Amino acid sequence: MPRKKTKSPETGTATAAAALDERDQRTLERIAGLADHVITAARAGRDPYLDIPSRTLSNVHYNRKKRFIEMGNARNRRNLFNLAQAKSYMQTMLVASGCKRLIEQGKTTSIRGLFYLLKHTIEGTREETFASQEECDPVIEDVEVTLNALREELHVYASNRGAMVGEITLRDSGDEIDCTRMGSGGYSIPSIVEPSVIQFVKCNAEFILHVEKDTVWRRFNEDKFWRKHKCILTHGMGQPPRGVRRLLHRMHHELGLPVYCLLDNDPWGYYIYSVIKQGSINLAYESQRMAIPDARFLGLRSFDFERCGLSESVIIHLTDTDRKRAKQIMEYPWFAHKKAWQEEIKKLLDNGFKLEVEALISKDISYVTEVYAPQRLRDRDWLD
Amino acid sequence: MPRKKTKSPETGTATAAAALDERDQRTLERIAGLADHVITAARAGRDPYLDIPSRTLSNVHYNRKKRFIEMGNARNRRNLFNLAQAKSYMQTMLVASGCKRLIEQGKTTSIRGLFYLLKHTIEGTREETFASQEECDPVIEDVEVTLNALREELHVYASNRGAMVGEITLRDSGDEIDCTRMGSGGYSIPSIVEPSVIQFVKCNAEFILHVEKDTVWRRFNEDKFWRKHKCILTHGMGQPPRGVRRLLHRMHHELGLPVYCLLDNDPWGYYIYSVIKQGSINLAYESQRMAIPDARFLGLRSFDFERCGLSESVIIHLTDTDRKRAKQIMEYPWFAHKKAWQEEIKKLLDNGFKLEVEALISKDISYVTEVYAPQRLRDRDWLD
Repeated sequence: MPRKKTKSPETGTATAAAALDERDQRTLERIAGLADHVITAARAGRDPYLDIPSRTLSNVHYNRKKRFIEMGNARNRRNLFNLAQAKSYMQTMLVASGCKRLIEQGKTTSIRGLFYLLKHTIEGTREETFASQEECDPVIEDVEVTLNALREELHVYASNRGAMVGEITLRDSGDEIDCTRMGSGGYSIPSIVEPSVIQFVKCNAEFILHVEKDTVWRRFNEDKFWRKHKCILTHGMGQPPRGVRRLLHRMHHELGLPVYCLLDNDPWGYYIYSVIKQGSINLAYESQRMAIPDARFLGLRSFDFERCGLSESVIIHLTDTDRKRAKQIMEYPWFAHKKAWQEEIKKLLDNGFKLEVEALISKDISYVTEVYAPQRLRDRDWLD
Repeated sequence: MPRKKTKSPETGTATAAAALDERDQRTLERIAGLADHVITAARAGRDPYLDIPSRTLSNVHYNRKKRFIEMGNARNRRNLFNLAQAKSYMQTMLVASGCKRLIEQGKTTSIRGLFYLLKHTIEGTREETFASQEECDPVIEDVEVTLNALREELHVYASNRGAMVGEITLRDSGDEIDCTRMGSGGYSIPSIVEPSVIQFVKCNAEFILHVEKDTVWRRFNEDKFWRKHKCILTHGMGQPPRGVRRLLHRMHHELGLPVYCLLDNDPWGYYIYSVIKQGSINLAYESQRMAIPDARFLGLRSFDFERCGLSESVIIHLTDTDRKRAKQIMEYPWFAHKKAWQEEIKKLLDNGFKLEVEALISKDISYVTEVYAPQRLRDRDWLD
């Protein structure tokens, strides 16, 4: 039975209060469904098993209509009465029961926390439930994909990375956060940004500018770009973590805000854009709630070196790995048929060098906020 | 001449407005002093030089009275008219002039940004001012130590890491930040937290609890520990960056708040505590404004395994590196004479294992916030 929690908005314990919300109830039902299956099988004298969607590369494909990476229907059966599968069957059920406990208590924890919560010596044996975190992590993903529930819905969070400022006010765990008044540090984007935790209160923004690095974000924030251009400014400290991607997705879909990405002109920048736009192979089962197929790539572009009149001093020569990665990305199905992207990546390879967004500082400290981004936005000059 | 900036608190461009504040003026004067020295030398027909405090291990020592690591008086002379030193002389002056430009414009940048700002081909040569970031970074430190100015005072920032919630309201770049109303994400602690950017408005907190990891911080925040115990809750995402250390220092000294550290029971946890308390060898010249000699170590302690009745399942065996580091830390002058610390570290070595704060989750998800920390605080049970 869920531990009874009283809703107390004034004390701000919204996460606890949310223990009984609709989404949590649905997740609990799904977990209960897993357990029911064991009982049914046992009563019928059949071996209990789990059918777990396969998270291999071969079961992932690009859906041209939805325009994101999704999982196929391949499943792997995990039997309890099979020596090779019994342990992982037990681990899967254990993770599910741990998540049930978290949801019922209205609490959340990290993957590390869940590991410690579940790690113990199995009674009457010397066997540990999990030997290491590495053994636990894929099982958490198995449970996510089997229950079709986001990790965040299972009350398990990843690291907090990324920040936000701009023309939006939201409610986070009962607290109203006015992102126009967040000073130089900004609002730290949490890992769990589901509607049970975060609600949008007011939005005057017309778009979202997502930049790769906190240092670039800081330049934009210091120059109050978001006020001048009525936008929301986010960064993901490199490859954006789940919380940032999910929040971008929610703001894009629920508030109708276009998302523009300002990333380095290198294969890593392309890849970050690709993940924001089409999802990642690894988290393909979450694309539906993460991917933003209409996200736009504002730059840096390979021809910015000439266009912006940058000096040779700021170029960084491509490594062999860069070239290899660039060629791989060129062949991604969502880039392969886009002429502009083929030209973009080909030009990178022809240039033989990459450029960081910070290279624009060589023009002027605020060139990126006062010239580069405004021009591109005004001229609708981006890649799709 | 400083570019004229009008103070406009309602638009929140406080950093720009701060361009002319007292601290910036003082930093500018120090930079001008460097330049004056060149002129004086030139006029007198002498070779210009810079005397740069030596940042080697041999010039660092523990000051028993002040109880932190500080730099000695050793200096290295850098001559302009010396083939081996001319380039680094030029680089030092270049970094100083770059910082002058930033301060005058009321702008800040990252070390990466400063690198791009200054990187160019020297006129009439094929020589670059800086070949790489690695060449630029130590020069930035040279300038800091020569001018006795914090990096932040030179308008150069590090990465934003770490967050804060709790019973404090501050003003950041003109925005009032009420840290009791920061939701689940918290206030992202910026890299520059000098009084020109951040002012304390109101504080109801009685102490600061600093935890190592964001995941542990989140548990404390979710359980609203800071409300129940009237405190401020911070984390530094591992080894806390300058901004976090400096903010802890300011809150400790300006608001008289004791600082308690809750870190992993391993050599890395000890080291983090050591850096917060006594400063680091690398940044010894900043100890005065960073170190908190009265910081207290709340845990985890090596005897917590028995005391808390933890299971064998949660232990992590020490590696050879762990043992080596533990022995080194035992000999740090500020630990060497403390019986309790010698016992603590000896017990770690005897145990043969380390413990993460998250291991307490095996007792109960909220054991750390509801039992562990409150008990230790109530019993004044910590290490100094």
